[in-house]
Amino acid sequence: MNYKKIAHYLGTILLIEAVLMLLPVIVGLIYREKATLHFLETIGLLAAAGLILYRRKPVRNSLYSKEGYMIVALAWLLMSAFGAIPFFISGSIPNYMDAFFETVSGFTTTGSTILTDIESLPKCMLFWRSFTHFIGGMGILVFVLAVMPKSEGSSIHIMRAEVPGPVVGKLVSKVTVTARILYGIYIGLTVMLIFLLRVVGFPLFDSIVSAFGTAGTGGFAVLNNSIGGYNNPAAEVIISVFMLLFGVNFNLYYLILIKQWKSALKDEELRWYLGVIAVATFIIALDLTVTRHPFSESVRYSFFQVTSIISTTGFTSTDYEMWPGITKAVLYLLTFIGACTGSTGGGIKIQRLAVLIKNSFRSIRKAANPRRVESIKLNGRTLDESIVNGITGYFSMLMVIIAVSILIIALDGFDLTTTTTSVFTCINNVGPGFALVGPTGNFSDFSILSKAVLCFDMLAGRLELIPVMMLFTRFASSNK
Amino acid sequence: MNYKKIAHYLGTILLIEAVLMLLPVIVGLIYREKATLHFLETIGLLAAAGLILYRRKPVRNSLYSKEGYMIVALAWLLMSAFGAIPFFISGSIPNYMDAFFETVSGFTTTGSTILTDIESLPKCMLFWRSFTHFIGGMGILVFVLAVMPKSEGSSIHIMRAEVPGPVVGKLVSKVTVTARILYGIYIGLTVMLIFLLRVVGFPLFDSIVSAFGTAGTGGFAVLNNSIGGYNNPAAEVIISVFMLLFGVNFNLYYLILIKQWKSALKDEELRWYLGVIAVATFIIALDLTVTRHPFSESVRYSFFQVTSIISTTGFTSTDYEMWPGITKAVLYLLTFIGACTGSTGGGIKIQRLAVLIKNSFRSIRKAANPRRVESIKLNGRTLDESIVNGITGYFSMLMVIIAVSILIIALDGFDLTTTTTSVFTCINNVGPGFALVGPTGNFSDFSILSKAVLCFDMLAGRLELIPVMMLFTRFASSNK
Repeated sequence: MNYKKIAHYLGTILLIEAVLMLLPVIVGLIYREKATLHFLETIGLLAAAGLILYRRKPVRNSLYSKEGYMIVALAWLLMSAFGAIPFFISGSIPNYMDAFFETVSGFTTTGSTILTDIESLPKCMLFWRSFTHFIGGMGILVFVLAVMPKSEGSSIHIMRAEVPGPVVGKLVSKVTVTARILYGIYIGLTVMLIFLLRVVGFPLFDSIVSAFGTAGTGGFAVLNNSIGGYNNPAAEVIISVFMLLFGVNFNLYYLILIKQWKSALKDEELRWYLGVIAVATFIIALDLTVTRHPFSESVRYSFFQVTSIISTTGFTSTDYEMWPGITKAVLYLLTFIGACTGSTGGGIKIQRLAVLIKNSFRSIRKAANPRRVESIKLNGRTLDESIVNGITGYFSMLMVIIAVSILIIALDGFDLTTTTTSVFTCINNVGPGFALVGPTGNFSDFSILSKAVLCFDMLAGRLELIPVMMLFTRFASSNK
Repeated sequence: MNYKKIAHYLGTILLIEAVLMLLPVIVGLIYREKATLHFLETIGLLAAAGLILYRRKPVRNSLYSKEGYMIVALAWLLMSAFGAIPFFISGSIPNYMDAFFETVSGFTTTGSTILTDIESLPKCMLFWRSFTHFIGGMGILVFVLAVMPKSEGSSIHIMRAEVPGPVVGKLVSKVTVTARILYGIYIGLTVMLIFLLRVVGFPLFDSIVSAFGTAGTGGFAVLNNSIGGYNNPAAEVIISVFMLLFGVNFNLYYLILIKQWKSALKDEELRWYLGVIAVATFIIALDLTVTRHPFSESVRYSFFQVTSIISTTGFTSTDYEMWPGITKAVLYLLTFIGACTGSTGGGIKIQRLAVLIKNSFRSIRKAANPRRVESIKLNGRTLDESIVNGITGYFSMLMVIIAVSILIIALDGFDLTTTTTSVFTCINNVGPGFALVGPTGNFSDFSILSKAVLCFDMLAGRLELIPVMMLFTRFASSNK
């Protein structure tokens, strides 16, 4: 283990977090809020801790892939631990575990909250809370790569460990340039969304924080009733469209930017993604039309909730817990699907699911003709069996973590739906679940142990299991 | 497709079912029940249909593996379709779909019932209902293999298609002999159980049907309150032990019979199985002791319910729906685990889960050291990657079927727990679930469509997906 290099990286990250925290300070100054002070205190802490770690001079400059995973896992933990401090010392969230949960939920772009009255928080706190989504959406380490030229050899390991999806594609030959392009697209889309929300009448502050929540596919809102609290149908449609857009693989936007429309639209994952959204929206809209709302309203509610859950954002425009059975089942299943690889969304991801489904049908064909040899194709290209195996291993590991988490959460004694969907929604980084953790509920009633488990799940889900599992098991250090 | 051979096999099965139906006739005669007549009528139908199919003379005698799967899938469908007739024409179950559901639930050893008042049925009907568990437990086609010498080449395909588990081991070189040994062990254990239940005071009839339900890991009981209705702690303990025993791979009993104790006890799957039972029993017993019952009673309830669910029997000794959160979560998770391969139990099965878990940890190690090549071992032997892939494919297919089933069942508009656990319990052949389909509930309120889907799930689960999926997809006929 190249501990010095790891420390050096972690120091860099804390220093960056200190700089990023200047934004809520500005917000606090604008609104003349006392709580601003606590951000300055935290910036001091971050700068001190960051400098101590940063000054460790690495002997060896290169990184092994397992060190890349370690950096990513530790970076996210440290960022959350420090990011929670302003909530805690300001008394906005009087319990540190709750503040940590809220911050992990923010950085992992989950959007599950322990707050019972969101609107009572100062603006600077609300800003920081939503800003963690924006930071976490693209990945803090990708940001590091974008702003600082590093040796190529280490960068790709870090990028691979942090960027969602089984296959990480570099857009261009240099990781640094790839990271900058991704950030450019990310910021561009966000600015566009802020502008559109202003046009339909959102206040500036609300436009910005809602755009952060959408861009990171996070889901923290500043009203207790989430986006539904604005009673603004136009804004709901705009946010729906952008939730959909932020769930798309960013590589496709790059293809569009360099005018390769055709290959972008031919992407298999995109087609599955849009197909699932269309079918789910149709089913729910139909059900809502039959049971409660006029058709156009049903479509709007349905499209909003479907894009919100599949992109793993988790905004709500109405209390879907009151909807009929079939719609709830569709939303329940969408929780697992998740967005496209290379997007800011979480979940199992469409590409993995496509491979899992193809692999399962292959096993049936193989049973019919045992001597048959067949490979799995994606986008017309044959997938290496080691990738297929990585995906099936990922899926099993996810189920194991879910099972163990359910067992521990169950100690709190809530009903089965609360227990199971709290785990599902956290590990898939969606945000709201059903029953007590439904759209009008929150995570405040869980025990400290359960909150810790759910934090683990959120991090495991966001970082796609491997970095976090490495941190908590002996694999990283063993060479066996 | 060797259709004539398939027809010939199916005819044989129907003729055997006709013979097996003589047993409820005898029971009906003993109790002088009018309903006996309906068994005779059904026997007539079975004999006629059986003879027509049986007389198709196959030109080619050999079978391809996909034909083996087709025979198994069609045999189970036909047996259930005919097996439901006595319930239907006697009026015991006035709706044919309900009767079919009950019979599929019987043959697949699921034990989910649509009956609201079980005790109102005539004895001959109750006997037949439980007898379907006994027939289905070992597999009707294995029975055919045991009684009729066939060409070896075809037999192994059929055995592989019907016997649960990813790796089918022949105990001895001839399939016929293997099948006979398995049936010998099966009947021996059942007789032992009947005897023990008589000793602790069960009436003869109840001893026999309860033993059928236990041996097949089915779970149909003749009292509305299942085994709990007898208020007989000794019987509960005996049945618990036998549920555990019938969940063990029968090959191990053969090893014990030929005095190879050591290799039987060294079996890795057995150790996981016993380990899971011990841990789950301990957790639930602890929870029940703290919250409601004295210690010894808690252990008894806990051991009973744990062995009942993990062996996928589904008997209940008390209403576990009233138990605290953690116990319900444990039972919820046990539903998926299931028994050992080569037992009469259903579920994903311990061996598969062990491989899935090992594979997922391997993928983490591989992420840490990408160049690493590592194989998965079971019982000290290296598993071929094609078996590992078959298991991961199986798991994904199971999840796909579960997702689609939930979507359709959700049309009925029940709560999420009812909707999801009805699918879980049926596809894993357990029997009871939670909420409306909990220990005191039943499946009568579902729509015809939902019942059809659950029948599909029960068959898919019992036959381990492949035969049923082949029947309902175009893979069997395509050579692509």
